[in-house]
Amino acid sequence: MADEAKKSNSNAKGGGKKKEVKKETGLGLSNKKDDNFGEWYSEVVVSSEMIEYYDISGCYILRPWAMSIWETMQTFFDAEIKKMKIKNCYFPLFVSPGVLQREKDHIEGFAPEVAWVTKSGSTDLDVHIAIRPTSETVMYPYYSKWIRGHRDLPLKLNQWCNVVRWEFSHPTPFIRSREFLWQEGHTAFATKDEADAEVLEILELYRRIYEEFLAIPVIKGKKSELEKFAGGLYTTSVEAFIPNTGRGIQGATSHCLGQNFAKMFEINFENEKGERQMVWQNSWAYSTRTIGVMVMVHGDDKGLVLPPKVASLQVIVVPVPYKDANTQAIFDACSATVNTLSEAGFRAEADFRDNYSPGWKYSHWEMKGVPLRIEIGPKDLANNQVRAVRRDNSAKVDIPMANLVEKVKDMLDDIHQSLFDAAKKKRDACVKVVKTWDEFMEALNQKKMILAPWCDEEEVEKDVKARTKGEMGAAKTLCSPFDQPELPEGTLCFASGKPAKKWTYWGRSY
Amino acid sequence: MADEAKKSNSNAKGGGKKKEVKKETGLGLSNKKDDNFGEWYSEVVVSSEMIEYYDISGCYILRPWAMSIWETMQTFFDAEIKKMKIKNCYFPLFVSPGVLQREKDHIEGFAPEVAWVTKSGSTDLDVHIAIRPTSETVMYPYYSKWIRGHRDLPLKLNQWCNVVRWEFSHPTPFIRSREFLWQEGHTAFATKDEADAEVLEILELYRRIYEEFLAIPVIKGKKSELEKFAGGLYTTSVEAFIPNTGRGIQGATSHCLGQNFAKMFEINFENEKGERQMVWQNSWAYSTRTIGVMVMVHGDDKGLVLPPKVASLQVIVVPVPYKDANTQAIFDACSATVNTLSEAGFRAEADFRDNYSPGWKYSHWEMKGVPLRIEIGPKDLANNQVRAVRRDNSAKVDIPMANLVEKVKDMLDDIHQSLFDAAKKKRDACVKVVKTWDEFMEALNQKKMILAPWCDEEEVEKDVKARTKGEMGAAKTLCSPFDQPELPEGTLCFASGKPAKKWTYWGRSY
Repeated sequence: MADEAKKSNSNAKGGGKKKEVKKETGLGLSNKKDDNFGEWYSEVVVSSEMIEYYDISGCYILRPWAMSIWETMQTFFDAEIKKMKIKNCYFPLFVSPGVLQREKDHIEGFAPEVAWVTKSGSTDLDVHIAIRPTSETVMYPYYSKWIRGHRDLPLKLNQWCNVVRWEFSHPTPFIRSREFLWQEGHTAFATKDEADAEVLEILELYRRIYEEFLAIPVIKGKKSELEKFAGGLYTTSVEAFIPNTGRGIQGATSHCLGQNFAKMFEINFENEKGERQMVWQNSWAYSTRTIGVMVMVHGDDKGLVLPPKVASLQVIVVPVPYKDANTQAIFDACSATVNTLSEAGFRAEADFRDNYSPGWKYSHWEMKGVPLRIEIGPKDLANNQVRAVRRDNSAKVDIPMANLVEKVKDMLDDIHQSLFDAAKKKRDACVKVVKTWDEFMEALNQKKMILAPWCDEEEVEKDVKARTKGEMGAAKTLCSPFDQPELPEGTLCFASGKPAKKWTYWGRSY
Repeated sequence: MADEAKKSNSNAKGGGKKKEVKKETGLGLSNKKDDNFGEWYSEVVVSSEMIEYYDISGCYILRPWAMSIWETMQTFFDAEIKKMKIKNCYFPLFVSPGVLQREKDHIEGFAPEVAWVTKSGSTDLDVHIAIRPTSETVMYPYYSKWIRGHRDLPLKLNQWCNVVRWEFSHPTPFIRSREFLWQEGHTAFATKDEADAEVLEILELYRRIYEEFLAIPVIKGKKSELEKFAGGLYTTSVEAFIPNTGRGIQGATSHCLGQNFAKMFEINFENEKGERQMVWQNSWAYSTRTIGVMVMVHGDDKGLVLPPKVASLQVIVVPVPYKDANTQAIFDACSATVNTLSEAGFRAEADFRDNYSPGWKYSHWEMKGVPLRIEIGPKDLANNQVRAVRRDNSAKVDIPMANLVEKVKDMLDDIHQSLFDAAKKKRDACVKVVKTWDEFMEALNQKKMILAPWCDEEEVEKDVKARTKGEMGAAKTLCSPFDQPELPEGTLCFASGKPAKKWTYWGRSY
């Protein structure tokens, strides 16, 4: 328990036998989600003990409360890609400038954000060395070396690592940081069909991370030419939406790189007929950004709300002793409850600290977003029951000890589903279908996620960006959803008036 | 199978129906372990497909064959420290210069090796930023913030990450690289007793990694004042020995930092009596160096030798078809064998490639160090048996299919034990007990690991270093073993002639 209680407060320092009991009110957030979203977010990630701000701007400390969420997703994803026979490896953090600049479009996309090492100790380096912003150019010279014949394909590697993008605008914990953790998969195939299939298989894993673990609805789709990965053939993504800011957020991307990098890095193989061919490549990644999206979507004015699947603590048990009650019996019942739940595979702990009131503990664990709180007082003890309180909707249920495991399982499952449903309802309420420029601008001003018929021309997207430029940032395409509504013959593009080719989501974005 | 076969060779590129079968001889190492150890090592790590050399000196690519070993050790260690209630976190890669320099002895130890970021994109940074060589100075300012009262202790964090030490001497894959992977644990306690106890508990986990996973005997002991961690109170380590070079190698270290960092970073807490006190701290780490020690200790002239516990492939099944034999039945028996072993929890695969001869495959998997090879030919099929061949000693055993799982288990267990016993016998044969300077110099010239009575004075160690300086590097203390032989009253230090205080291992080292 001790390291769950790092928040500085005068009571934790109190040394006397009789401690001053902290009032619940002292724990709350000073910002409200709907009033002041940006400040609310910064406050939640710090107060829930997920993040500590660091003395270098744009860098953040991931504390255990955040790291355990990352580890849970990592365990799932790593097992899934191993089933796909993708193997883990580790390539260096450093890239030499020559290699970094080999693919022109690619480096143009990343150059302004690259951090450069120019000194070691007090010695200037002869050649400056870049820190990887992503590893295409780090890895592919070696793919060229390792791939010779068709039997060397597919080559499917992944790495879990840190990358650095020295961004200057609006650093935000998890969402936009100068260093972040991610996985990056890099695969090479003999045929485009195999590459295409893998792009979607990985994208489905990303959907599952968001929907099955983080309880966040996402839209699968394809990025526009302007928004696709620099140097790639096409980019697919899962897109989430933050109703409070009216901004879309790219949740994870699965790129087909086509043969462009293969050409630049000379990644060739001899096929079964003895002909020299270029490989087809994919790369795909998701990052610690996922955790930020989760905070933004589910958090409330009491703090963090954790979906049960990723909560490092799913159930917190709080003893509620009364003056005349048998305190030891209550504590024993709490321990027994934790044991029963732990043995059944739940992540449960009891908060036995004697210098905090039950009310303070309720607020503390609500701030930290624990999905279910179990309270045990004299009455519960007498009735051989516990009181369970849901974090997401504050609903209270008395559970007979005999049904504990079964009921807790049901409640946690229900919390996941409720979080997902509530998020989906909110997200769906923000989706606005428009067909004209005026409707588009009105919806944009209302912070909507806009679904509009589009001619799919790069110049038109550039034009929309230019026309919507402003303090809030320009609107751009989020994705063209795979799940396309019907597009009646003769439908025109909302922006250009040309024949529309597809429905596309537009909006401001992170 | 495909990505196990990346080695460039003309046959893999062959397109025709009838492939030229590769001669076994082409696969061997061109260097012998006993003749040319350095070149042998470089060749083994590359030919076994663990390492690829990278275009930046001192950086190496960890290929899946190496990475899987790291992951196996990581899974073990991570579960063990979680049992100890140590939690994972992630602190930034970057350190600001002010913080880095806060602890004087510490930074003196690392300063020459620190890599500095001075530019992002084409912009010069106002303040240069260091890349972590280790994270004491990264983390401890925040320990100071998080720790207030005795209830905040112990604080026990760990991170899995990369660190950078821009060393200029003799880069060697795994053993000495400019970037490497490790875990670093950083803990803070209210009392020295708790810190002392944890130092040993962690050291025992490091011993288990070496002895139970890598089958390498290590000596637990304490480092001298000269060799301890810069800025710490005392350092314990597990020490391995490489007979071929006659060098000791520090396997992993568990440091008690005492209160020195607590003083520099003001990490204080109020104890139960309301008194302000400084915490006691530890830090401990093991790195990918472990894999290099494994290669050096067990490898032979045929290539890598993997201890079964860390081998990503424990059993390779090779079909041995004959002209007139029922090839399909042999292949089916191979598949059945793999299935039976996989279901029993072994990591087994079959090599069905049709462009390599059985002999080529034997050599290939021997190079990669797979502990057990199973061959299935017509005779085996007829007798309902398989032939099992051990990598470590080439022993061949016929196993009835009915006993497959049980026998394979026994053989893998025995391979582990044999590797450990052989390594211990070799190591022990290198240990030389000396009592005089002449004996010491003679043993040093014979590349021994020298156990000598020592007065435990820093000046004497410095003097020994100065007197043994030369092409091969100076001798220094490796550790004073916890398991101390008897030291009769009146025993004198081998180097100073003063009364000896303890037995200490000396030698050249990595």
